[in-house]
Amino acid sequence: MRDVCVIGLGLIGGSVLRGAAASGRTAWGATVSEVDADAASRSGYEVTANVEAALHRAAEADAIVVVSVPLPAVENLLRLVSQHASHCLLTDVVSVKGPMLEAVRRRAPYTRYVGGHPMAGTADSGWVAGSAELFRAAPWVVAVEDDTDLAAWAEVAELVLDLGAFAVPLPADSHDETVARISHLPHLFAAILASVGAQGGPLAMSLAAGSFRDGTRVAGSSPELVRAMTEGNREALLPIVDDALGRLGAARGSLASTGGLAVTINAGHEGALALSAERDALRAGVRIDLTAPDAREGLIALGERGGRITGFEGSVALGEVS
Amino acid sequence: MRDVCVIGLGLIGGSVLRGAAASGRTAWGATVSEVDADAASRSGYEVTANVEAALHRAAEADAIVVVSVPLPAVENLLRLVSQHASHCLLTDVVSVKGPMLEAVRRRAPYTRYVGGHPMAGTADSGWVAGSAELFRAAPWVVAVEDDTDLAAWAEVAELVLDLGAFAVPLPADSHDETVARISHLPHLFAAILASVGAQGGPLAMSLAAGSFRDGTRVAGSSPELVRAMTEGNREALLPIVDDALGRLGAARGSLASTGGLAVTINAGHEGALALSAERDALRAGVRIDLTAPDAREGLIALGERGGRITGFEGSVALGEVS
Repeated sequence: MRDVCVIGLGLIGGSVLRGAAASGRTAWGATVSEVDADAASRSGYEVTANVEAALHRAAEADAIVVVSVPLPAVENLLRLVSQHASHCLLTDVVSVKGPMLEAVRRRAPYTRYVGGHPMAGTADSGWVAGSAELFRAAPWVVAVEDDTDLAAWAEVAELVLDLGAFAVPLPADSHDETVARISHLPHLFAAILASVGAQGGPLAMSLAAGSFRDGTRVAGSSPELVRAMTEGNREALLPIVDDALGRLGAARGSLASTGGLAVTINAGHEGALALSAERDALRAGVRIDLTAPDAREGLIALGERGGRITGFEGSVALGEVS
Repeated sequence: MRDVCVIGLGLIGGSVLRGAAASGRTAWGATVSEVDADAASRSGYEVTANVEAALHRAAEADAIVVVSVPLPAVENLLRLVSQHASHCLLTDVVSVKGPMLEAVRRRAPYTRYVGGHPMAGTADSGWVAGSAELFRAAPWVVAVEDDTDLAAWAEVAELVLDLGAFAVPLPADSHDETVARISHLPHLFAAILASVGAQGGPLAMSLAAGSFRDGTRVAGSSPELVRAMTEGNREALLPIVDDALGRLGAARGSLASTGGLAVTINAGHEGALALSAERDALRAGVRIDLTAPDAREGLIALGERGGRITGFEGSVALGEVS
């Protein structure tokens, strides 16, 4: 098993470092945040504030380098990777995959790069919020592009499985459109709900119950991180926001004219049922031989259907799909 | 302590019946739902499918009658109340207070009526979903109008305290505007998020993580109940939906033009902080003598500032406010 070098030790990076070490891999990290570096060192992890030294060690050990910084900090970090660990296997946990792929092609073209994104998190941030268990049973997108080296892909997917997650093979554009739908729009909605609620002053806050607390929970997340992920996914997010605006406008029109909200509320209820159905679905096993000529298409088709990779037998990826 | 007669034994009414009995009051109920009546009887509660018989008993015992049916069923029930228990102390748990007050004035003008609304619930419905603990530490609006009899108000508030909740004194219009903000808009947003998510098919559902699950949780509620509460509060809900539409449109415009979402996301984060601040606020004690000439104004001022009543000493209501 390859060693793991994690750069950026916030909630996600910190959890990757803990999980990689817990799975028996040699793992170390670096962060420019002195608060996070101190906290991680005090917890007994090998952590430095010297990013270049950590990358140097990665180059010597031929480790997997995991980029765990917010998108606005990616370009600078990739420049360092290109200088100090240009031939390492590179992955990341950044929440948009198209812009990340472009940045890698521009700044670190010689790395073997396989993009990643764990669909897990909490409203808290920083090293102290992390846990080796954060990714347990979570989907983790491992990107498959036209030029992805499938041996490298399998290595990143195995790290993901070691962290307790499932690997979901998807192209960057498909990932970005989906996260706009199920993560970035929810963050925007939470922000707007929280603003409208707060306009009601202490009375509104004192009456806020389950629906408001649930609906605004992620508005408590770090605004910088939320901006980085939503603004970074602008191209995919715009049509999704337009869809939501159209639906909210239609609900408004219907409430004002006939007084009815049946279409809106019934569609939402069916959506909620679809989510439960997906969670409870029976899944069939699938085997994808990564040395076969159509392996790439097989992986992508599995991901697009909501399937996931749960293990490996040699060069065969074991998947399941409902 | 007055006996309690609960009509309608879904999640809320069923929890009121359980809680009233647990607090040592004689309590009985009626429901037209045979499923709920069977389940409640099997749990050992005095429950009948004969609403008129339950109201008859309420008239004889001079009990508090608690209307716990959805708004569309209220008018018919009030007609029965007016026939069989017209002089009883009447309250309700219906989620809109203006339309409910109008219905009482139209259909049961001779009852002593004090409107109520517990700010508690789950995404589940029906008797089986209820619990005597559902209202523990929850705010429960107990309506104060120009003509409210404050002795009756105190009796309803004492029942609310017996159920483990706090009593929040508010006029109907203030209640309706606030619940549009912190409950009805969140339900609409959850429905729209769930619809947009489900458009993404099994892939979107398989990747849905915390923000989507939190943001769509109440979309799993009974569509009939959500329609009853949102459509029933049309007048107060429309300007709140317009506010939300304006904010979402502004976010869209900003994302499309400059690419920035700072205004939206920072405002949402401040709203989330306001909610935590309210939850953690230090509260000062307040005493309101219900026999004083300005008692009504004192109660309403307390409620409007986010305060609540937590006990009684004779005719003095003990409140707290941050």
